[in-house]
Amino acid sequence: MDTAADITAMRRAITLAARGLGSTSPNPVVGCVVLDAAGRHAGEGFHQRAGGPHAEIHALRDAGERARGGTAYVTLEPCNHTGRTGPCAQALIDAGIARVVYAVGDPNPQATGGADTLRAAGIKAEQGLLATEAEAGNAAWLTSVRLGRPYVLWKYAASLDGRIAAADATSRWITSPESRADVHRLRAEADAVVVGSGTARTDDPQLGVRRIEDAVQPLRVVVDTGATAVRPGARVLDGTAPTLIAVAEDADARHLPQAAVLRLPRAATGPGLDIPALLRALHGRGIRSVLLEGGPTLAGAFVAAGTVDKVVGYLAPVLLGAGPAALADAGISTIAEALRLDVTETVRIGPDLRITAVPGPARKGN
Amino acid sequence: MDTAADITAMRRAITLAARGLGSTSPNPVVGCVVLDAAGRHAGEGFHQRAGGPHAEIHALRDAGERARGGTAYVTLEPCNHTGRTGPCAQALIDAGIARVVYAVGDPNPQATGGADTLRAAGIKAEQGLLATEAEAGNAAWLTSVRLGRPYVLWKYAASLDGRIAAADATSRWITSPESRADVHRLRAEADAVVVGSGTARTDDPQLGVRRIEDAVQPLRVVVDTGATAVRPGARVLDGTAPTLIAVAEDADARHLPQAAVLRLPRAATGPGLDIPALLRALHGRGIRSVLLEGGPTLAGAFVAAGTVDKVVGYLAPVLLGAGPAALADAGISTIAEALRLDVTETVRIGPDLRITAVPGPARKGN
Repeated sequence: MDTAADITAMRRAITLAARGLGSTSPNPVVGCVVLDAAGRHAGEGFHQRAGGPHAEIHALRDAGERARGGTAYVTLEPCNHTGRTGPCAQALIDAGIARVVYAVGDPNPQATGGADTLRAAGIKAEQGLLATEAEAGNAAWLTSVRLGRPYVLWKYAASLDGRIAAADATSRWITSPESRADVHRLRAEADAVVVGSGTARTDDPQLGVRRIEDAVQPLRVVVDTGATAVRPGARVLDGTAPTLIAVAEDADARHLPQAAVLRLPRAATGPGLDIPALLRALHGRGIRSVLLEGGPTLAGAFVAAGTVDKVVGYLAPVLLGAGPAALADAGISTIAEALRLDVTETVRIGPDLRITAVPGPARKGN
Repeated sequence: MDTAADITAMRRAITLAARGLGSTSPNPVVGCVVLDAAGRHAGEGFHQRAGGPHAEIHALRDAGERARGGTAYVTLEPCNHTGRTGPCAQALIDAGIARVVYAVGDPNPQATGGADTLRAAGIKAEQGLLATEAEAGNAAWLTSVRLGRPYVLWKYAASLDGRIAAADATSRWITSPESRADVHRLRAEADAVVVGSGTARTDDPQLGVRRIEDAVQPLRVVVDTGATAVRPGARVLDGTAPTLIAVAEDADARHLPQAAVLRLPRAATGPGLDIPALLRALHGRGIRSVLLEGGPTLAGAFVAAGTVDKVVGYLAPVLLGAGPAALADAGISTIAEALRLDVTETVRIGPDLRITAVPGPARKGN
């Protein structure tokens, strides 16, 4: 039986976990709250950085002797393996914790088994409290474990009639300063930011996180198939964060810093690179979440590949009547083939609307 | 000093007024509540149909002798003129009403002066209670009086990426049954429904109001400049409601029922008809509100003419990546010329989003 105190503690743990978004990869975000034997708050913590202590260790240190006989609430099953840090299951046993409540089982074959270890030591271990909320908070990491590729959030900013720029290509600014600040939060939460050659050529974007304290700069990735869009001196090569320029295996990329060049096969059909190959390469470098910032051609290729896990659209209350659309060819030619989503949130951001949607159940996991 | 009872009564009058939307043109919608001398509810009514009794008359009849010494709350200044019915100001005097509270002054030069007549008879007449709400409820009529043309609500239904159909022109159905039912409510509230030749040719729409009890069928208008889209046997000519086919003065329209043909000048620039001339012609026929249902070319012409007063977009959580956009050429070529709106409402309609927006203050009245 989960009490109100259990729910309060787990909700706090989920909130704590979210503070790690963008800085824990390739690890998940995890939060932990420890209550003492009398049910009083004793300690809390979250996983802050890969290689650093796990959430349970932070919380146990915070609680000290008060952890003995108490309950630990963890958003993810405590790990059972020794990686860069020791196993959390053992740390909980050593601290004298009597009961462990965790929201989501660890799907990672290397780390799973923590609950069994706890039970073998006589500790009550219960799974499932606020599992849906905890899963949502860890969606990127869980997706990457399940699919072996990074979680992809496609973000776009468009007019009410779906245009990302006017007929003459001007687009500064369709959306408001509030929306643009919100995009920096999305960047801070992602391991990598990806744009296409059109965006690189038109906007020369820097792709860094600005005005967010303690943000870890994401890897910057430009999909520049022909190696013609990113030129020496481009802002994305400014050295403030790592950068990859993904080019075709046969592209002439001699003008680019060789450490930044990622060679990939071309797509089997259509222009551009093989998107699954790109995602595999990023996954291999520890990238668990990708913020896809466009443009329309690259977004179309991701949709066509079935590799968009979430859509965040910033809609400005503006009408243009001409100019490029937010999404170009996604291999959909008739209405029955449309990618159907579920709207999960609609929020006003300054004068704009931010719409969040995820592929419907029938599409999940493709 | 307006009391809570005053506000309650006026809010009820505004709610009553809305029940007349779509059936009172060329008159405004008006609601009226009468409280007796002790402040108790005595009667209420609303203007139901042009030619029928005004709201005050319905409410006074409902109240009977209890109106004597009481207060009448009216959403619009009581009329002072004898049209198809007698002046309401005189009826309020005759009923022995002691005080009249009205929300909005009557801008119609033919009907104004009611408040003066009441005061001359020794009745307290007060203007302004809940004026903003009452004006919003009468936006169509007030706009038409002020501008001498019908109020135009542009409605569109599109995918999240702004497409109204897939690449192969299939569009049944992007939006949900709930959204389509909501559109019938918009039709029922409008005096006329307007579509362009592309929509007529592609969809052969019937444009009637379905599944709404007691709805007055709107005038159906097809803008068919070259008289090539509407053919004999088209559903819009089915006789269930009046229809106008607006054609160019030089178009060969011999195949159309002559009573349905409305000849208008062509636009000075670009294709299509002169939109202000179309709106003047409709205004001359008593049309005070128009629901513009597209398609993109006609909507672009209305935006270019500065004659869109409200936008209602039904956004389906669907991605297409190809297909026609909701809005075509509106004479906007650079971002600084964009038509900027304010979002006034966002509502979930089934799985879809309904976004309502109005031109920003700088654009009002253009």
